[in-house]
Parts: sequence; C-alpha cells; structure tokens
Amino acid sequence: MFKVNEDYLKLPGSYLFSTIAKKVAAFSDANPEKELIRLGIGDVTQPLAPSIIEALHGAVDEMGNAETFHGYAPDLGYEFLRNAIVKGDYESRGADIAADEIFVSDGAKCDSGNIQEIFAKDNKIAVCDPVYPVYVDTNVMAGRTGTYDPKKETWSNVIYMPCTAENNFAPDFPDEVPDIIYLCFPNNPTGSTITKDQLQGWVDYANKNGCVIIYDAAYEAYISEDNVAHTIYECQGARTCAIELKSFSKNAGFTGVRLGYTVIPKDLKAGDVMLHSLWARRHGTKYNGAPYIVQRAGEAVYSEAGKAQLKEQVGYYMNNAKVIFEGLKNAGYTVSGGVNAPYIWLKTPDNMTSWEFFDFLLEKANVVGTPGSGFGPSGEGYFRLTAFGSYDNTVAAIERIKNI
Amino acid sequence: MFKVNEDYLKLPGSYLFSTIAKKVAAFSDANPEKELIRLGIGDVTQPLAPSIIEALHGAVDEMGNAETFHGYAPDLGYEFLRNAIVKGDYESRGADIAADEIFVSDGAKCDSGNIQEIFAKDNKIAVCDPVYPVYVDTNVMAGRTGTYDPKKETWSNVIYMPCTAENNFAPDFPDEVPDIIYLCFPNNPTGSTITKDQLQGWVDYANKNGCVIIYDAAYEAYISEDNVAHTIYECQGARTCAIELKSFSKNAGFTGVRLGYTVIPKDLKAGDVMLHSLWARRHGTKYNGAPYIVQRAGEAVYSEAGKAQLKEQVGYYMNNAKVIFEGLKNAGYTVSGGVNAPYIWLKTPDNMTSWEFFDFLLEKANVVGTPGSGFGPSGEGYFRLTAFGSYDNTVAAIERIKNI
Repeated sequence: MFKVNEDYLKLPGSYLFSTIAKKVAAFSDANPEKELIRLGIGDVTQPLAPSIIEALHGAVDEMGNAETFHGYAPDLGYEFLRNAIVKGDYESRGADIAADEIFVSDGAKCDSGNIQEIFAKDNKIAVCDPVYPVYVDTNVMAGRTGTYDPKKETWSNVIYMPCTAENNFAPDFPDEVPDIIYLCFPNNPTGSTITKDQLQGWVDYANKNGCVIIYDAAYEAYISEDNVAHTIYECQGARTCAIELKSFSKNAGFTGVRLGYTVIPKDLKAGDVMLHSLWARRHGTKYNGAPYIVQRAGEAVYSEAGKAQLKEQVGYYMNNAKVIFEGLKNAGYTVSGGVNAPYIWLKTPDNMTSWEFFDFLLEKANVVGTPGSGFGPSGEGYFRLTAFGSYDNTVAAIERIKNI
Repeated sequence: MFKVNEDYLKLPGSYLFSTIAKKVAAFSDANPEKELIRLGIGDVTQPLAPSIIEALHGAVDEMGNAETFHGYAPDLGYEFLRNAIVKGDYESRGADIAADEIFVSDGAKCDSGNIQEIFAKDNKIAVCDPVYPVYVDTNVMAGRTGTYDPKKETWSNVIYMPCTAENNFAPDFPDEVPDIIYLCFPNNPTGSTITKDQLQGWVDYANKNGCVIIYDAAYEAYISEDNVAHTIYECQGARTCAIELKSFSKNAGFTGVRLGYTVIPKDLKAGDVMLHSLWARRHGTKYNGAPYIVQRAGEAVYSEAGKAQLKEQVGYYMNNAKVIFEGLKNAGYTVSGGVNAPYIWLKTPDNMTSWEFFDFLLEKANVVGTPGSGFGPSGEGYFRLTAFGSYDNTVAAIERIKNI
C-alpha cells in the first residue's frame, strides 16, 4: 500500500494569502456595496512595457514558421538571455559571473522552493523573522525543520533571526551556526534592506563558518540608495558561499509571464562537489526550460528601450510607496521600508495584533493589507502594504486610512 | 558546514541525450561535409498551428493593457483552460473528471519528476523497462531506489517490468507488489501500447493491491486504434488509484511553449489523506503557474479550428511514422510501434548492441537515432527512431538506411 510523504502533513493550516482571500470574500459578500482597495498581495498592476510586448509578438511570429520555430530550449536557458543577464546585472556592477553560471527558470518562487533539494536533509537553515513563507514551508516538506510549536509558531530545527524595529530590521548573526542561510534584500516583507558593508559581513560569516547563503534579490530594481548592493556578488568572496535568485516579476511586471534565474558560481563547493553540477542535474532532470517567447521577452528587459520603460514603471510604483509612507507618517503611524523596496511596513496602532489591524482596516477603510504575523512571530504587531496598486487606488487608500 | 544531498551523487554519469549530443558533435567535427539527419530526440519540428499563434498574439495584446493585464495566475490554472480540458479530454471520453481535479503546469516532464515528492521515501516503485529516464532518476534523487548495479544497470530497490518482443512490449504484473507504478501508453520509447482491457487489468491490480498508478498519457493524440484508452479514467475504478499526466508538447507542438497538466481525482486517498490536497500544497508552495499567454494558447488547442489544424499536424507526423515503419520493414528490419505513437522501435541487426548500431547508423547513413539500451537494460539490442522530423528528412533518412 502506497504511503504519503508525512512531512507534508506537518505543515500547519492554510497559506497566509488563502486566509486573507477567504476573509476578504466573506467581507465582500456581507458588504457588496463597499469598494475594496487591495494593497495586500505583491502582484503588479501595470501592463507589460511596449518593448516587451514587441519582443513577445516577434517571438510568437517566429514560432509560427518552420524555419524559425523553437522546440526544447537549452538546459540552462538561451544564450541570448544569459548573455544579456551577465552584461546587464553583473558586468555592470563589477561582479564576476559567467553566462554558464546562470540557470534560467520560470521564476524565483520555484527556484527558492526547489533549491533546498540539493542539500542534505540534516542541514540546518536560518531565516529572517518575519520571512517569505516559501523558504520555511519547502524545508518543512523536505523534513528538515523538526517539530512545530503552534503556540510560538516556530519549528524546533530552524534558526530564526528576528528583524524588528530594535535592530532596524537587519538580522544579527545567529548564536548557533546554521548550514544554510536565507537572506532577502531589499526585504519582503519589511521593505528594509542592509548596506553593502553589512552584506559583506554576511559573506565573511558564511565563508568563515562553512555556510551557504541563498540570496533572494527579487526586489533589486527598487534600490534607490548608493550604499546598497544590487547583487551579492558585489561582495568579496561571495563566489565561494552564495547562490543568488533573481526574478523578472517585480522589475518588469512578469508575475503572469513567469521568468527568473538562479546563479550558482562554479567556485561554490562542498568538498570537491560543485553545487553548480547538482543544480544542473536537477534542472536537466526535473525542468524543461522557460518558453522561448518568454526568454525573448526577458531579453527585451535589457534593451535600451526596455530599460528606459521599466525605469519608469519602477518609478511609478516607488512613487506609490512614497505616497503610502508619507501619508501614514503624517497620519501618525510608525512606518519603515518603501525607500529601497515596494513594501511599507507599519507598526499597528494601539497594540493591536496584526490580524486585529487587518480586520480594522478592512472594516473601517475597506483596504486590504497583509498581517505581519503571517510572515513569522516577529512580524506580530506589524502590517505590510504594497506599492503595486494603481496610483489612484493608492492615494484613495491612504486618504481612507487617514480619515478613519 | 553545509552538506549536499548524497542521493544526487548516486546518479550514474551523464544523461542519455547528452551522450548522444557529444557523439554527434564529435562526428560532425571530424566530418564537416556530412549532412546529418536527426531522428533521435523527441522534439517536434512543425510550427505552431495558426489558431494557436492567433491566441498567443491576442493574449500578448491583453498583457499590454492595464485593463486586460494578468498577474499571478490562479493556483490550479485558469478556469477557461481547465474547463476546456475537461470538455475536450474527459467528458468526450465518458471519463468523470472535474475541473478542480486538474492542475495546469509547465509540462509533463516537470510533473513526472515532481510527483514522487508527495509519497513516502520508503515506497517502492515499478517501471517498465525500457523507460523514460526521468521516472527513475527523480526517484534516485529522492533516495528511494537503493544501490546501483553498474553491470546490470539497475537499482536494487526498483521493480523492473521488461517490455520486449516476447511480451509484445506490454509489461506483465510484477511478482513483488510495488507501491507506485509508472505506466506510459502509448509508450515512449517502444512506440507500442496496450488495449483498454489490458489497462483495465492494471487499474484492477492497483485497486486490489493498494498501488497508485502514475499514468503518463503524453502521446495520447497519436492513438489510431479503437480499442486503446485515451485516458486511464476510461477504466472503471481509476479514480481511486490513478494520477494522469498530460502534455501539450506532442499533440500541439508545445515543446518550446511549455504546458501540461496533472489530474488527481479527489477519490484517490491514503487513509483519509487526499493526494489531491498534497499536490495542491506542492503546487501552491513550489510553483507559480503557467504564463497567461501560454494558458490561452492551450485553450486554443481545444477550439474547433485548433482541433482541425492539430489533427493535420499529428497526421503529418504519423505519415512520417508510416514511412519509417514501412521503409525499414521492407529493408528487412524487425520493427514495431509507429501505429499509435510517433516512435518506431527496431531490433538492431546482426546482434549489434544498441550503441554499436548507433555508431553504425551515424557513420554509414549519417542518421542520428537513440540507442534502446539508454532507456534501460531490456532496451539493449533495440533502437528508437522518431517521426518528429520533416517529411523530406524522414524519407531521405530511410533511403539512406536502405542503401547501407
């Protein structure tokens, strides 16, 4: 008789965003006349930029002709895209990454979920708290996290690194040395980031202690300050300790187009085993490449026209971030984030819990956000708003919150 | 110090198609004047059908406007596609499958690799021999297959079900009862299939013995005979024992477009745990949906125009299959397959090994095929040719083989 993976059954209840969706649906059913503004989930709203649309149409036409038709893609992704990535994201930052160290994929969520697979089951992970739920959940599914404490909402075999106002939302080095460290800067959900010097500290820590850093740089395009690294490979020594995950979802609005990539430098080894070889084996065996037309769209992201159009798009969202940040600050809220990231992180007023504030905001302002506690215990008492709405909705939402 | 997944290191050498690619490259380098014809890898060559191109262009335009832009897709895939699948692939066959039992994905390769993850590590798998390498390799990576015997080229903890001329390439029920049974009909690589009655036998066997069948129906569109099931859910009782994997790669030429789906009926349970829930959890946590534009292309596959155009495309390849089958038969080869599948499986002449015949064909006819032994020990002495080339190339290849 077949048996199921018991580790899957350890996962507590439902996913954060499902719970939100259910609560919102119930509210809408009860109050059909209320018009909701959603600043909760991190999905974009602006259409694809013209140069990307043009590239997509061109590639679709190619697929309609036998002479230019494309079947299975090369395992690592098309060279035209990997070369554009190297030039646009690494050479331009003085970071030494080669095209054959890049693995094109259908997005950073999949990669961030699958990457743990190449590590031993008894490796111990460290995560920021609060944190993007996928890092921990996928390690739970792999049986790597021990037992769950429903009261503390933590796993016995995970090292949590609190990121709160007290440490300026920058994690301290953990007391116990982990094997795998997940870092995401600019951060989801707090919207804060760390300086390049601080990141260098993490690289040094990892190299000294034999850790590997899984560095999620999905929000890199939103960096506005000079002393923040756009890639971990700007740091000395990162080639021997860091894997970097990148997304096209937030810099180019590809949440519904699906494209990302993972960088594994060939210098990153356990003994004489290159992690690059293991990921290549996974990629070749369990994955079959991003669509040709999508890879052409990705290439257009790096064209001169594409870059200019996307700079404008990111600017549009960052203006929303400013509207939220300034508006809430003026209304007396304690806010952070929003300067190098499209997320604003606010302290709930009057000692409300995150979920209490969620209900409060939904009922009083008809605005949907995300409870900080959904991202981890240290997120309790915080709340996330995203800058990915339209400008008009963003302004209206802040007005409503001010007028509560 | 982080450690790697040791199970990955158990995988022997390189992937079949990489070895072929290297041999072919070496031959081409040494013989630059020789024009090769490739009937090896199962990649399609015909362009996308006009109705699919039209759907893609339309969806691209939608992505360029804020009003019709699509971000993150629903977890299971868009309803318009899942409804089309239910109507086109199940209702039409009298098979009882609901739209919320369908999980849209980026292809059957990924799904066939990932599906093992929802099962316990100590479950024992059974595979046909020869077999599509992904089934076994992904179980090796999960630590489920025991130790490798390099002489026999088998794993100690895998049940092999030989499919040879002796049993008409239809597996016999194994002596030892497995937990998980991988079946693929019409079959890759043998090109043979089993009747609906025979498939019903497997469903009955699975229900009786508490096995789950992972049924790969990627080549369903090539079925030409009436007594062959197009879906395992045509069989009585399949809802309690079978998962079905479907691909758009071969019926619609989506190898470079990437679309597939997995069916898990809600009646399929281990105790009171629905496998549907586990796969939903994996899908929601480690995957983020197929691109909107690709799902619209998938919908077009089921339109009246799409169906007519794709029937023609499948007919084109099946005509190639006939050319190969008849040509080789007339030349004195022992051939099978090619009637309900785009693969022709031939016995190597003069007791050559599969790889000897590969080299022989490459050198004497400059034709690339796939050695049967690459798919498993019982494939030794066989060779696979695919019908996915152009008609002209297919005719030319057979002429060359005849003239050796």
